[in-house]
Amino acid sequence: MKLVVKDMNIETGGHLIALMNHEDAVRLDLFPEDRILIRKGRKEITAVVNVAVSKKTTAPGQIGLYEELIERLKAKPGEEVHVYTADKPKSIISIKKKLNGIHLTYEEIKQIIDDLVENKITDSELTYFVSATYTKGMSFQEIISLTKAMMQTGNLFKSEKHPVMDKHCIGGVAGNRTTPLIVPIIAAAGLTMPKTSSRAITSAAGTADTNEVMMKVEMPIEKMKQAVDKTNACMVWGGGQINLAPADDKIIHVEYPLRLDVIGQALASVMAKKLSVSATHLLIDIPIGPSAKVKNLQKAKQIKKEFERIAKHFSIKIKVIITDGTKPIGRGVGPMLEARDILRILRNDKKQSYDLKEKALMMAGIMLEMGGKAKKGKGKEMATKILESGQAYEKFKEIAEAQGKKQLDPEKMLEAEFKFDLRAEKDGRIIKINNRAINRIARFAGCPNDKKSGVYFYFNVGDKVLKHQKIFTIYSESAQKLQYSYEEMERLKPLEIK
Amino acid sequence: MKLVVKDMNIETGGHLIALMNHEDAVRLDLFPEDRILIRKGRKEITAVVNVAVSKKTTAPGQIGLYEELIERLKAKPGEEVHVYTADKPKSIISIKKKLNGIHLTYEEIKQIIDDLVENKITDSELTYFVSATYTKGMSFQEIISLTKAMMQTGNLFKSEKHPVMDKHCIGGVAGNRTTPLIVPIIAAAGLTMPKTSSRAITSAAGTADTNEVMMKVEMPIEKMKQAVDKTNACMVWGGGQINLAPADDKIIHVEYPLRLDVIGQALASVMAKKLSVSATHLLIDIPIGPSAKVKNLQKAKQIKKEFERIAKHFSIKIKVIITDGTKPIGRGVGPMLEARDILRILRNDKKQSYDLKEKALMMAGIMLEMGGKAKKGKGKEMATKILESGQAYEKFKEIAEAQGKKQLDPEKMLEAEFKFDLRAEKDGRIIKINNRAINRIARFAGCPNDKKSGVYFYFNVGDKVLKHQKIFTIYSESAQKLQYSYEEMERLKPLEIK
Repeated sequence: MKLVVKDMNIETGGHLIALMNHEDAVRLDLFPEDRILIRKGRKEITAVVNVAVSKKTTAPGQIGLYEELIERLKAKPGEEVHVYTADKPKSIISIKKKLNGIHLTYEEIKQIIDDLVENKITDSELTYFVSATYTKGMSFQEIISLTKAMMQTGNLFKSEKHPVMDKHCIGGVAGNRTTPLIVPIIAAAGLTMPKTSSRAITSAAGTADTNEVMMKVEMPIEKMKQAVDKTNACMVWGGGQINLAPADDKIIHVEYPLRLDVIGQALASVMAKKLSVSATHLLIDIPIGPSAKVKNLQKAKQIKKEFERIAKHFSIKIKVIITDGTKPIGRGVGPMLEARDILRILRNDKKQSYDLKEKALMMAGIMLEMGGKAKKGKGKEMATKILESGQAYEKFKEIAEAQGKKQLDPEKMLEAEFKFDLRAEKDGRIIKINNRAINRIARFAGCPNDKKSGVYFYFNVGDKVLKHQKIFTIYSESAQKLQYSYEEMERLKPLEIK
Repeated sequence: MKLVVKDMNIETGGHLIALMNHEDAVRLDLFPEDRILIRKGRKEITAVVNVAVSKKTTAPGQIGLYEELIERLKAKPGEEVHVYTADKPKSIISIKKKLNGIHLTYEEIKQIIDDLVENKITDSELTYFVSATYTKGMSFQEIISLTKAMMQTGNLFKSEKHPVMDKHCIGGVAGNRTTPLIVPIIAAAGLTMPKTSSRAITSAAGTADTNEVMMKVEMPIEKMKQAVDKTNACMVWGGGQINLAPADDKIIHVEYPLRLDVIGQALASVMAKKLSVSATHLLIDIPIGPSAKVKNLQKAKQIKKEFERIAKHFSIKIKVIITDGTKPIGRGVGPMLEARDILRILRNDKKQSYDLKEKALMMAGIMLEMGGKAKKGKGKEMATKILESGQAYEKFKEIAEAQGKKQLDPEKMLEAEFKFDLRAEKDGRIIKINNRAINRIARFAGCPNDKKSGVYFYFNVGDKVLKHQKIFTIYSESAQKLQYSYEEMERLKPLEIK
């Protein structure tokens, strides 16, 4: 069938979608989400069909192409293209198999992940896959297959060094930015740690967002390699050009509407990212608390066991710790406020945040022992020495230099101009702070995009406060956002004094 | 947040969708599929957010409204609207519950169906619901709740008559148009039968498409009532203005990409439609065959049992028959070709299709016995008498008159001008005809929209043919469609001679 191109002038964010009028769709017996082959000259692209009922959107004889298709076909409005029916990708058969409770082979899972990354399957097909893994669960073998498939669809950072250290935190705790402290300690001790981190999805800041205040975090994989060769370590964003295990983001996207948490898939995506940087030794932190991602000890222990089993399969030495996730860790929540906390600890300033330092040292200590640099029981002592002697700070500056230094002086990090101080309504003890609420308040204030925005704490859970004392300050780069954030705070009531 | 309206000039087909720029979405901490409240003057509407990354589609400060929203808000391009975050509908919690394997109450299911019909839940949320009912199954109580909920969201056709007869066929067999024969026989015997039928979704014709060749099938429910009062019966389309149990179509829409078949949901949707016309006596036909909807006897027996259980709950007298679905029934496949078969049987013409007549008489016979008009074992005899005496044809004409008569002379139904004769490649016996392939060939030829298009059979499975004899003719209203249909036939190879 010959159709005339109409430019829809809309980006889909990757998917190759063409809009046909109902009449033409019927003619080719096409239904929404069916595939068509579009041919223009020698170019041929498979796209997903959406069907327009009205002639206003796409008239009979027209084909509405979204931006991604326009670009790939180099098509201009008014040009003619040939349209043929095409088969659905094979992945669809595998997805249906999984819905029927049948375990998938590595080849089947790999095909799904490949098609996913190449935008060949639609969101609704992916939704079926996610539902299937959620309701039917994933076998150990399937988690292993998914891990391998996710790893292989992105870039790989190969390293001949041994050991290669890595860490991961399951998350959900406000602040808790241990990575930028742990990496320089580990690297200063002579161990290799090519750390990649993510940006925030629903939190106030991801490690990559925070590090970005102090150094460049987005670069080609060659530049990452140079930094590691030079300094033993790096602290980069795993997305963008580095592009490690990219299937993850797409899966998270369809999980969002129902806030689904598919454990097997989450484990696979963490492990895929570690494998893709050639990690040999891995520390996993699972904070538990009512407003953290993992709510209770039982669930944490289950996840711990799964991690250990997968790590064993891939010959990765692993240690999983279960930590306190009932309150924020560190004083700042938001990219710049967290970066300032990090630098103050590295510089051993008076204004440093002791709970964050303590947690980072504990974790770095374990990793020094795992990596053979410290004797059993002596790791934390060694980490403390490296940090307090300034060696870690020197290493941090080296890494920042190698990646592209930005602001490294915490006292030059000016707070956002618009702020609101939350003061205690009465004398008492803070008995609860809701991590999720704090993240949301920080996001309304502008996080993670407005680097200076966020929440800064003067007290934490367990502290005594007097009436009218400041408990935290919300910072924002605009009065409007401060207003939104304030309203959200009023609604969520993020803390309790008793 | 104040935003300026941009008219997207695209219909979504019902969903209320607004497109915001990424920057504005971040500002309100909104993710794709989150809900917003849009206020313009005193009008307030909850919509689903899509997020545009590029400024080309929707720039910061703009809100792109799809047609349904533009109309409901009476918004004009350039006008300002206020946008607030809104909560997701409660249904989402129920959907997640079901994904977790928890049975839903009637209230929860009713809420989901209400939200569905009012376009308040998105396709991806509905996909999760369908996945959940598919993977976790539905309890008997849930099927009952879904049936009631589906019935109650549409119109009701109330009747004080008793009994009220109805029938349903699970489908998948090409041709097999028994309803327009059964209804006049039953009505001529003095029983009430307010029959509603559907249009084709993936087949060549639905009963409503076929009847539409002979009479009007779309009308307000009052007109349907008048027809039934006057003639004991009607043969209308259950969609459109009559709008019985409308949730069904939306569910089928999201099942399509994976060709999912959720038994509990299919049962509920059939029963909801029967309840909504006040049926008291119901005959269900389950054809089985490799290319029919139900593939084997075991599955058919399971569905039969389920139907009987649900019917009992609603005090509907039911009879379920399992029939031969291995080959087409009747000679024509396609709206007009089927209508011609029907009229030739009603008029007792020589060119009538005996297998279709036989099946219709068998079914009408059972219904006459169920409805107390014939003694046990005597129903088919009575049906034959009513049909062959011309009483059924008289009743058919009455019904057509009451609904709005169209063409009732089969010999005035001219075949489509473009045709292709498939001839036997060798002497032998036809051992297989693929129903699904025949439906698809007919659809490519123009069915169901081009009424005269379709496939007309001269032989069926079991018949002996000689080399070069015509087996079937494909009819099409355009050479182009005939070409598509021919290519599809070549690809699918719909029959086998041995």
